[in-house]
Amino acid sequence: MADKLKIGIIGAGRIGKIHGENIARFIPQAGLEGIADIKLSSEQEAWAKGLGARIVSNDPEDILKDSSIKAVVICSSTDTHADFVAAAAEAKKQIFCEKPIDLSVPRVKYALEAVQKAGVKLQIGFNRRFDHNFARIREHTLAGGVGKVQLVKITSRDPAPPPPVYVAVSGGIFLDMMIHDFDMARFQAGSEIAEVYAAGAVLVDPEIGKAGDVDTALVTLRFANGALGVIDNSRKAVYGYDQRVEVFGSKGAAIAENDLPNTVKLYGETGVIGEKPLYFFLERYKSAFVDEMAAFIDAVDHNRATPVTGEDGLEDMYAALAADKSLKEKRPVTIEEIRRAY
Amino acid sequence: MADKLKIGIIGAGRIGKIHGENIARFIPQAGLEGIADIKLSSEQEAWAKGLGARIVSNDPEDILKDSSIKAVVICSSTDTHADFVAAAAEAKKQIFCEKPIDLSVPRVKYALEAVQKAGVKLQIGFNRRFDHNFARIREHTLAGGVGKVQLVKITSRDPAPPPPVYVAVSGGIFLDMMIHDFDMARFQAGSEIAEVYAAGAVLVDPEIGKAGDVDTALVTLRFANGALGVIDNSRKAVYGYDQRVEVFGSKGAAIAENDLPNTVKLYGETGVIGEKPLYFFLERYKSAFVDEMAAFIDAVDHNRATPVTGEDGLEDMYAALAADKSLKEKRPVTIEEIRRAY
Amino acid sequence: MADKLKIGIIGAGRIGKIHGENIARFIPQAGLEGIADIKLSSEQEAWAKGLGARIVSNDPEDILKDSSIKAVVICSSTDTHADFVAAAAEAKKQIFCEKPIDLSVPRVKYALEAVQKAGVKLQIGFNRRFDHNFARIREHTLAGGVGKVQLVKITSRDPAPPPPVYVAVSGGIFLDMMIHDFDMARFQAGSEIAEVYAAGAVLVDPEIGKAGDVDTALVTLRFANGALGVIDNSRKAVYGYDQRVEVFGSKGAAIAENDLPNTVKLYGETGVIGEKPLYFFLERYKSAFVDEMAAFIDAVDHNRATPVTGEDGLEDMYAALAADKSLKEKRPVTIEEIRRAY
Amino acid sequence: MADKLKIGIIGAGRIGKIHGENIARFIPQAGLEGIADIKLSSEQEAWAKGLGARIVSNDPEDILKDSSIKAVVICSSTDTHADFVAAAAEAKKQIFCEKPIDLSVPRVKYALEAVQKAGVKLQIGFNRRFDHNFARIREHTLAGGVGKVQLVKITSRDPAPPPPVYVAVSGGIFLDMMIHDFDMARFQAGSEIAEVYAAGAVLVDPEIGKAGDVDTALVTLRFANGALGVIDNSRKAVYGYDQRVEVFGSKGAAIAENDLPNTVKLYGETGVIGEKPLYFFLERYKSAFVDEMAAFIDAVDHNRATPVTGEDGLEDMYAALAADKSLKEKRPVTIEEIRRAY
Repeated sequence: MADKLKIGIIGAGRIGKIHGENIARFIPQAGLEGIADIKLSSEQEAWAKGLGARIVSNDPEDILKDSSIKAVVICSSTDTHADFVAAAAEAKKQIFCEKPIDLSVPRVKYALEAVQKAGVKLQIGFNRRFDHNFARIREHTLAGGVGKVQLVKITSRDPAPPPPVYVAVSGGIFLDMMIHDFDMARFQAGSEIAEVYAAGAVLVDPEIGKAGDVDTALVTLRFANGALGVIDNSRKAVYGYDQRVEVFGSKGAAIAENDLPNTVKLYGETGVIGEKPLYFFLERYKSAFVDEMAAFIDAVDHNRATPVTGEDGLEDMYAALAADKSLKEKRPVTIEEIRRAY
Repeated sequence: MADKLKIGIIGAGRIGKIHGENIARFIPQAGLEGIADIKLSSEQEAWAKGLGARIVSNDPEDILKDSSIKAVVICSSTDTHADFVAAAAEAKKQIFCEKPIDLSVPRVKYALEAVQKAGVKLQIGFNRRFDHNFARIREHTLAGGVGKVQLVKITSRDPAPPPPVYVAVSGGIFLDMMIHDFDMARFQAGSEIAEVYAAGAVLVDPEIGKAGDVDTALVTLRFANGALGVIDNSRKAVYGYDQRVEVFGSKGAAIAENDLPNTVKLYGETGVIGEKPLYFFLERYKSAFVDEMAAFIDAVDHNRATPVTGEDGLEDMYAALAADKSLKEKRPVTIEEIRRAY
Repeated sequence: MADKLKIGIIGAGRIGKIHGENIARFIPQAGLEGIADIKLSSEQEAWAKGLGARIVSNDPEDILKDSSIKAVVICSSTDTHADFVAAAAEAKKQIFCEKPIDLSVPRVKYALEAVQKAGVKLQIGFNRRFDHNFARIREHTLAGGVGKVQLVKITSRDPAPPPPVYVAVSGGIFLDMMIHDFDMARFQAGSEIAEVYAAGAVLVDPEIGKAGDVDTALVTLRFANGALGVIDNSRKAVYGYDQRVEVFGSKGAAIAENDLPNTVKLYGETGVIGEKPLYFFLERYKSAFVDEMAAFIDAVDHNRATPVTGEDGLEDMYAALAADKSLKEKRPVTIEEIRRAY
Repeated sequence: MADKLKIGIIGAGRIGKIHGENIARFIPQAGLEGIADIKLSSEQEAWAKGLGARIVSNDPEDILKDSSIKAVVICSSTDTHADFVAAAAEAKKQIFCEKPIDLSVPRVKYALEAVQKAGVKLQIGFNRRFDHNFARIREHTLAGGVGKVQLVKITSRDPAPPPPVYVAVSGGIFLDMMIHDFDMARFQAGSEIAEVYAAGAVLVDPEIGKAGDVDTALVTLRFANGALGVIDNSRKAVYGYDQRVEVFGSKGAAIAENDLPNTVKLYGETGVIGEKPLYFFLERYKSAFVDEMAAFIDAVDHNRATPVTGEDGLEDMYAALAADKSLKEKRPVTIEEIRRAY
């Protein structure tokens, strides 16, 4: 433990706080050295100091220029990710960046090129790969339990839609919400997506439609390895966060059900009542946030490839853009078509 | 019970036997009066007499011309369905016909017109609507439990593929296998299908591909009422017959899991082992076969509309044809486009 | 099938009808030859004729003296069982007798001696051994899946108490209700019960207490092979018939949950609602009634020992009597003590 | 947050570490001020300093005499609990003490009298009351969901037996293991235990028998409110830590199943395989350890009664002693008989 990996966090919003607390509490091989937020509030300052951060600043440069800090975790607003990734790469920091790197492909490429040039590591925050259920499915597949993958089915529904004002700047359901599922699909299939067909509808909130987006989407995937896939998204499942994955193959199927807050069932005259799924991502992916960070630190410590790379982020983005185009043009769209467009 | 509905069966193969035994054993308000099969074997003859049938013949005409017989159940080979439906209609019999009426739309229309002209009832053997699980989902929807339907998801996988020789004359996976699921989708959505997009692959058996068919299919549905749907089919699930349905809506979701032969779980050092789903349709839909026949007899007895009409059969067929066209032309296809083609 | 086992039923009440219909419908290797009931109603007569019985009579002697009838199924009132068993044995019939043979040990012994002397077979109607769940547990145990049995846990609760007038003549909860569970316990443990300790209470209906019985009982078992067991009974579970069994051993545990009418769950804002267990024994043990009869007929046809013998019935009764004594005397009671008392 | 409750821990073994880390990480309204262990190792010292403890000592007196420390958590060896409770009470500290207070009733009474005299709070570490599943059952009962409690069933099995040398000094299965379940039973029944009957056997390891103990036990409970209960314990369930509770009453039943590490099931040709329960108490009751400490701190902060009192600990102990006597004397034993013996 003599040389803990010293980490700086840029951005002290909700997700920055989660990563900060996870590093401080649960990852003994790392140390939380600094926290910067350009709009650092006194509350954030107190929180950061409470976690023992040496550098607490409203200038991210204080993190980037500190030579003791070896890795940065970028949790600032999406539009600043690419620049911070590039700057951190230039400063030779190992980088963990929240998803997405950017909503623009050229900006993502610019960031990835900086990373490649600097020869540093980059991990994107697709935390669901680290979920105990979904990771277990992948383990079964890798162990041969499902045979050759033939079908990947992902159910992914939020408990409540974001405010329409957010929807308007979100990049749309595919880039904002389903991008997690595209990443999951690629992870579970062990293959790139080759083609998508997207159906969508406004069934939850007409305001979302007015903002130019859909709130319900169903996307067919064709993977490069020949397998098929399907993802369904809804912005609103009244019973909570519905997160299920199923991988079907030549030797069987691995199926993950939702997590529940407890296992109790109440048997009464009118039926048997059990619990709804855990409410939302903070509850459901609590451990996944810890585990993705531990994996990042482990990759840095042992100089291994990160488990979710910048290229993963780019591929996921291509899938989202293809889905968007498919929905608008009412036809299947290949990833190659998107790739060639940039 | 003084006037049981007297029923004649045409076709004494596997499904004819099921209906014959169900009528004789489980439906007290009906009587099995006659059984005809153009290739009646001595084994079939003994079986028919054992069930107490008065008419046992190798000439279906013996059923059709018998005035005491008020209803016929058509279980002969698919290519004879349309003619028998027309002949039975002309003979003023109430008609239960196994699916499909025919693989050709004009032939189906011909049969339906005969039925309409004769003013008799026709029920098509889409037995899954009567499955205890799927019927219960529909009850929940009708009772308002799921609110406005937004998404219908159907998983439907066979335990083993049919022989390639069968595949070649089957009409293809959409008309042969998924047609059941199109019917289920329309039943659960409470709406007609407006458009389909089909993805397919040969992942189970190359011979099926050589026969010009796919063995794995994933079809997106857009319903007239705006809801979306998805059906996945595989010709081979090594763990048995996978038959699940999920209806998601504005107030919740109703989800049916597979039926199992027993509830026992064995807790051991290497995990907890439970049973696989019931093997195939004879096991899984055992009660549904009885219940669809009871519903038919009930509709006749009370002069009510049958729960699955000839028009249902035609609509299901349009969906299957649209899926087939979609797969071949790699684009979404509307049902209207198919309808206009005939 | 040339020589079906010809069967006569004595007693055409609820359980007699079940056996009659099961034999007629589901057991091709047997034929329902005669039905007698000393108070044969016209409704019962019509029913019996409808099933094709040749002898339909109000005199059981008509069954016993008919030489073509090789086996009798005794479904008359409990107080007549022992005499009919003895008479049937004397007439050299193979015997299936509903439980219990009698509420008096000497009367049971008298019947068993007649059976032994005549050298005929006797099976007692402990149908639960044939339940798909509980039979599967036993299979797991016999296959070594649970190792050496250490603990047997049985939950057995009725959906509603019988009328107090019935309770008064029932022989008490142990002889009337828990006797099924004593039989299950012996079956699952693969060992005789050596000692019992019974706790009981009147928690459901004070009238049951006034009738001198308890409505809630919890009995500890010590088996001859060293394993322990526990049975809990309640006369009233508002959520339906609660029938669960668990066998725990050195290598694992086999646990059976209740059967449900369907697998559907409704996910809503207030929780997830599933079905209650099947309502009562007619629903839950529907197949077990068929299977026990098929097993009896199979034992006769192949001249094998019946799977539930008269001695099983006597042992189950000793356990019930021991539990009764334990409850009254507030101490553990050995089976040996009961056995010696007769 | 200005005035966090300052806490000192006595005993830095396995359970002391758990409480220390939980206080430091998860309970913001408390501060970990000091840690003392009479055999403080350098590893423990580093750990304590790493958590930010101001006092790190091998003399518990350093904790007790520090006036800024308002509450102590006693995690030392069992034989020292009573004295530390008494000393802490005298020092006017609020006290959380691991179970049991002592294996001797007079020593427990001595400690409780000191607490009462000092007017401080005492909470005993029966963490299972705070388990998400078992707490939820109690909530259902308190909300009226199960009606009047009639039966409490507790399954409690360890994954592996402790070493025989531990068994010899453990106080026996009832005081060492089942005492948790007696506490759970009283908690769930909402009533004191009035009488117990214990059956026991040596089925797991003969060495445990040689040490004078049993490794399998089944105890019947009669509660003061008339309800019945049953607890089964085994020192070895090969499939992991089996912790289930069921409360049955006049309006229904609340049933908690085991927690699993994930929800994945693998459907294959030979069956459907799911996960075993979480391995042991550290995994299963991870959150319960946090929640019991938070509840203690909350009770102190708001000057409320602690949720598990010293009297609870004494009552649980009486039940264990009654079970022990019942096993030895082969008869039901009332708690009153035990109480009068002291």
